Amino acid sequence: MFQSFDSKSDPAQAKPRIERLRAQMAAVGIDILLVPHSDEYQSEYLPPSAERLSWLTGFTGSAGAAVILRERAVLFVDGRYTLQAREQTDPALFEIDSLIENPPPEWLKANASRGARIGFDPWLHTIEEVRGLRKAVEKFGIELVPLDRNLVDAIWEDRPAPPAEPVRIHPLKFAGDPAEEKLKRISGKLADEGIDHTVLTNAASLAWAFNIRGGDVAHTPLALGFAILSASGRPKLFLDPRKLAGEARTHLAGLADLHAPEALEPALASLAEGSKLGLDHGLAPERLRLLVEESGGSAVEFPDPAALPRATKNETELKGARAAHLRDGAALAHFLAWVDEQTPESLDEITVVERLEAFRRRVGEEAQMPLRDISFDTISGSGPNGAIVHYRVTEKSNRRLSAGELLLIDSGAQFEDGTTDVTRTVALGEPTDEMRNRFTLVLKGVIALSMLRFPPGTRGMDIDALARVNLWQAGLDYGHGTGHGVGSYLGVHEGPQRIAKSGKEKLLTGMILSNEPGYYRQGHYGIRIENLIVVSPPEPIPGGEIDMHGFETLTLVPIDRRLIDPALLSPQERDWLNAYHKRVFEAIGPLVDGPTSAWLEKATAPL
Amino acid sequence: MFQSFDSKSDPAQAKPRIERLRAQMAAVGIDILLVPHSDEYQSEYLPPSAERLSWLTGFTGSAGAAVILRERAVLFVDGRYTLQAREQTDPALFEIDSLIENPPPEWLKANASRGARIGFDPWLHTIEEVRGLRKAVEKFGIELVPLDRNLVDAIWEDRPAPPAEPVRIHPLKFAGDPAEEKLKRISGKLADEGIDHTVLTNAASLAWAFNIRGGDVAHTPLALGFAILSASGRPKLFLDPRKLAGEARTHLAGLADLHAPEALEPALASLAEGSKLGLDHGLAPERLRLLVEESGGSAVEFPDPAALPRATKNETELKGARAAHLRDGAALAHFLAWVDEQTPESLDEITVVERLEAFRRRVGEEAQMPLRDISFDTISGSGPNGAIVHYRVTEKSNRRLSAGELLLIDSGAQFEDGTTDVTRTVALGEPTDEMRNRFTLVLKGVIALSMLRFPPGTRGMDIDALARVNLWQAGLDYGHGTGHGVGSYLGVHEGPQRIAKSGKEKLLTGMILSNEPGYYRQGHYGIRIENLIVVSPPEPIPGGEIDMHGFETLTLVPIDRRLIDPALLSPQERDWLNAYHKRVFEAIGPLVDGPTSAWLEKATAPL
Repeated sequence: MFQSFDSKSDPAQAKPRIERLRAQMAAVGIDILLVPHSDEYQSEYLPPSAERLSWLTGFTGSAGAAVILRERAVLFVDGRYTLQAREQTDPALFEIDSLIENPPPEWLKANASRGARIGFDPWLHTIEEVRGLRKAVEKFGIELVPLDRNLVDAIWEDRPAPPAEPVRIHPLKFAGDPAEEKLKRISGKLADEGIDHTVLTNAASLAWAFNIRGGDVAHTPLALGFAILSASGRPKLFLDPRKLAGEARTHLAGLADLHAPEALEPALASLAEGSKLGLDHGLAPERLRLLVEESGGSAVEFPDPAALPRATKNETELKGARAAHLRDGAALAHFLAWVDEQTPESLDEITVVERLEAFRRRVGEEAQMPLRDISFDTISGSGPNGAIVHYRVTEKSNRRLSAGELLLIDSGAQFEDGTTDVTRTVALGEPTDEMRNRFTLVLKGVIALSMLRFPPGTRGMDIDALARVNLWQAGLDYGHGTGHGVGSYLGVHEGPQRIAKSGKEKLLTGMILSNEPGYYRQGHYGIRIENLIVVSPPEPIPGGEIDMHGFETLTLVPIDRRLIDPALLSPQERDWLNAYHKRVFEAIGPLVDGPTSAWLEKATAPL
Repeated sequence: MFQSFDSKSDPAQAKPRIERLRAQMAAVGIDILLVPHSDEYQSEYLPPSAERLSWLTGFTGSAGAAVILRERAVLFVDGRYTLQAREQTDPALFEIDSLIENPPPEWLKANASRGARIGFDPWLHTIEEVRGLRKAVEKFGIELVPLDRNLVDAIWEDRPAPPAEPVRIHPLKFAGDPAEEKLKRISGKLADEGIDHTVLTNAASLAWAFNIRGGDVAHTPLALGFAILSASGRPKLFLDPRKLAGEARTHLAGLADLHAPEALEPALASLAEGSKLGLDHGLAPERLRLLVEESGGSAVEFPDPAALPRATKNETELKGARAAHLRDGAALAHFLAWVDEQTPESLDEITVVERLEAFRRRVGEEAQMPLRDISFDTISGSGPNGAIVHYRVTEKSNRRLSAGELLLIDSGAQFEDGTTDVTRTVALGEPTDEMRNRFTLVLKGVIALSMLRFPPGTRGMDIDALARVNLWQAGLDYGHGTGHGVGSYLGVHEGPQRIAKSGKEKLLTGMILSNEPGYYRQGHYGIRIENLIVVSPPEPIPGGEIDMHGFETLTLVPIDRRLIDPALLSPQERDWLNAYHKRVFEAIGPLVDGPTSAWLEKATAPL
């Protein structure tokens, strides 16, 4: 199993650790210490060696931050983790506050004393983050002190070693473009913009640029490391040598000078003097900016040059994505057919997760394209748990299914040819009219984006409301974005593209995004329907004047017809749904056997 | 007539003027001079005394800028003015460039020599504009030099005097809130934000805050002037004393210390020392920032404190808006009935404008609420002229109407109780199927916004696409925003609210906006349908969870049924249209006489 269901954490672990940490703080002369949930790469998943927040506080959630003062300590979490944070931490030690409504900069403004010195590890905070923090507190006479060493690491005796999983080549048959070309294009871009060097700090960008994958964190095939890329001259790659053997070493040695991670700082310092160094302020650690400035270089803002080329998939990557989605569609068909065969009461949320992972492994083996990982912990939310947007089932929260409820399953696969992410909401027994009404309103949002044509230049933020408007008319909404970017055998959440109020990036041909409106009735049930979609190239429309983009839907999984109220669909919407189901049947039918095949035929019958 | 149809301009006027200007430039030691189309108040319409660009170059368009070098001169205009600019200026003197694609900062980056000194009048450029310009050029070693006096004024011997039309009180029965209260609220806001003083530089904000109106520019009842408002202490108002007599003087003397405009600089200088002065960087002249800094004050960014309260109309202003729209609806009904009675060939674009203004005057007289002005020059575009988005008919461009064409009429009124702005597109004779198709797609956009419910926090940019999506699906679009803010007997284009890709402002209860999608077939015809709408307060929806805003439509004018293809409307859209027409008939019917009344009944019959 790639997924675990534990929630182990001991609230008592924190007391002695906090005490020792405070001694460290006193020794270096700081009053306050920031302990974020992040590492040098700002990626979604942390290796165990970087789980400092969890080790220190006991809180195991995927987002949060702590602020440790001499006499107080505050843990900041968002709404989905408030309860969990209270359970996992010692209330005598930690106050809990909101990461969203009163985040550390705001809290510090109101609570830090004038003259206070706030220590932070400049490797763990981006340039933008530190700038924002400095702006918030400096007018109150509060000083931000970048620390030379991480004070948590200093007391963490049994800290796990940083990961050193082997690097694998991501073959050209999946990557499409040779790494040489990608690196050359980045050099050209640097030269065009008058920038001498840049540092790739995002591990997904590193993987993309060098056509490598690794195994350093859960669910995303990243090899943690850095690269310095230059307008002229060979790239320098900083990766733990233990990760490099055989073909992968040869591949990388052909592309770059190979160095150990410790060599990054001296290398950057020696390059920086008199040079213009581009850093992505939203991704690069403040430490790099400090180092460049200290070394006599000038650090200028320069967006990660791999971000947009990585986001706009080439034809080979799209071919891979389509193949991965066929495989994933077969796994989901097996799974949904299996769920329908069972009495709900014979299942619980965990058995559902286990079975789904087993089906994904099976289709991978059959296709000789093994399931490398799940792309994130499956969200298996029955009844009221379905309304918890980022629910992760544990042994403790596990619930038995029950007729009359909805089951929301959000899951994905990492195949070497593509990353998937799909949500389906399933009726267990007979759904209520309200459930069918809400489900259909959500579906209308999915269809609105699926059928949409839009002109070049359109940003994600321009079309987010199209997926919501049917819910709005009914006095409803959902509290998350409509779509996130998805990588190509990389992160299942990948920027910069997104369909959300914050989606400033233009939607470009080849970008893969999710299309996942939802509706959550707190304490009762949750509904989400999620397909992955890819931006298609602008094409003429008969009688039209402007070549328009559209979306190609990658996900091929039936949408539960028992939850649709056909009276709420327009003829065009009904046509879309029937055509989609026909496509699912034709594509997935040949890949599944007897019982699943019969189920699929029924599940994709026209409305 | 409030509207004129001349396009007088003499391309030969520029040569001697430019020569004398260059002598001035040499005398003060600058290489390049910026001549913008703006005044100290950054308002839409300039008084004749500020029409420096037109006087210098011959170009009379409403937007543009000139860059004068020792040996070259460039006039920057946007696409709608390229042709006009060529006709109105001397090609031996002026190059024409694009204000949008290659605006002066970009042009200067590429064309100004290293070491060049660029002179500008800091009264005519906002703080933001100068900051952007400085950022663009300073890395190329180009210097920006704020000038003590305007070099165009120095050679403009017969320059008209600044306007000094009488200030009138905007009575409480239209304003709703006493000026004392508005000014007190602004003082409170300054105190809350720790700002000592601010300068109101926007003439619409000045008019709103002091409950006054004036006559200094065309089409907008502004009294040009400034005010200094303070966290504590009486406001200081800087207005030409010739504008103030009788009741208006008494009213203002009760609210503020009255000063002549010349007193602003010394007053600000004496207040600034050691003070924090808030300036709206997008509105306030750079001159004020310089003055504050030179006088030992600190100039901080502070959005115009009147902007949002002015944009969110109170109940009295909304009552006025509704009354103005009844009157305006009657005028439009008379007008549209009259157009339908005529042979198209007996009309031209100018007679149409004249007749519409006459109908507006008539309804104003009948209601004893005289038409104070038109709110902008009526756009009367027949056939291909309808496709020119900002078309202004002149004696030269005037066209005879013709059966089989469309007539696009975009016009508005300034009544003391409200400002109107309405566009209707009328079929002359039999429209083509294509025209009906396009018109109906545009109408669907109007209806989408009219029926929309949306949650608090929604911005204009979030909903702009809802008005476009039906056109997008057909490969079409329109090249302007969907809606602009509208004032209350103030500017017909009023920020900060707008429905457009750039509409960052949240839509708040009481904001008046236009709802005006369009479609333009270049060289053939133009379609636009424009209603004014007001954001209604959030209200529960039966069965819903979130109180939702909506829009109340203010405009009450029939939409040409001959141009609608009912087959393209959904049942809900058809219901909306029929209900709207019923409302128009019931509201306007009692206000119009025999022939118009019969026309109205037919024009508002259900589809």
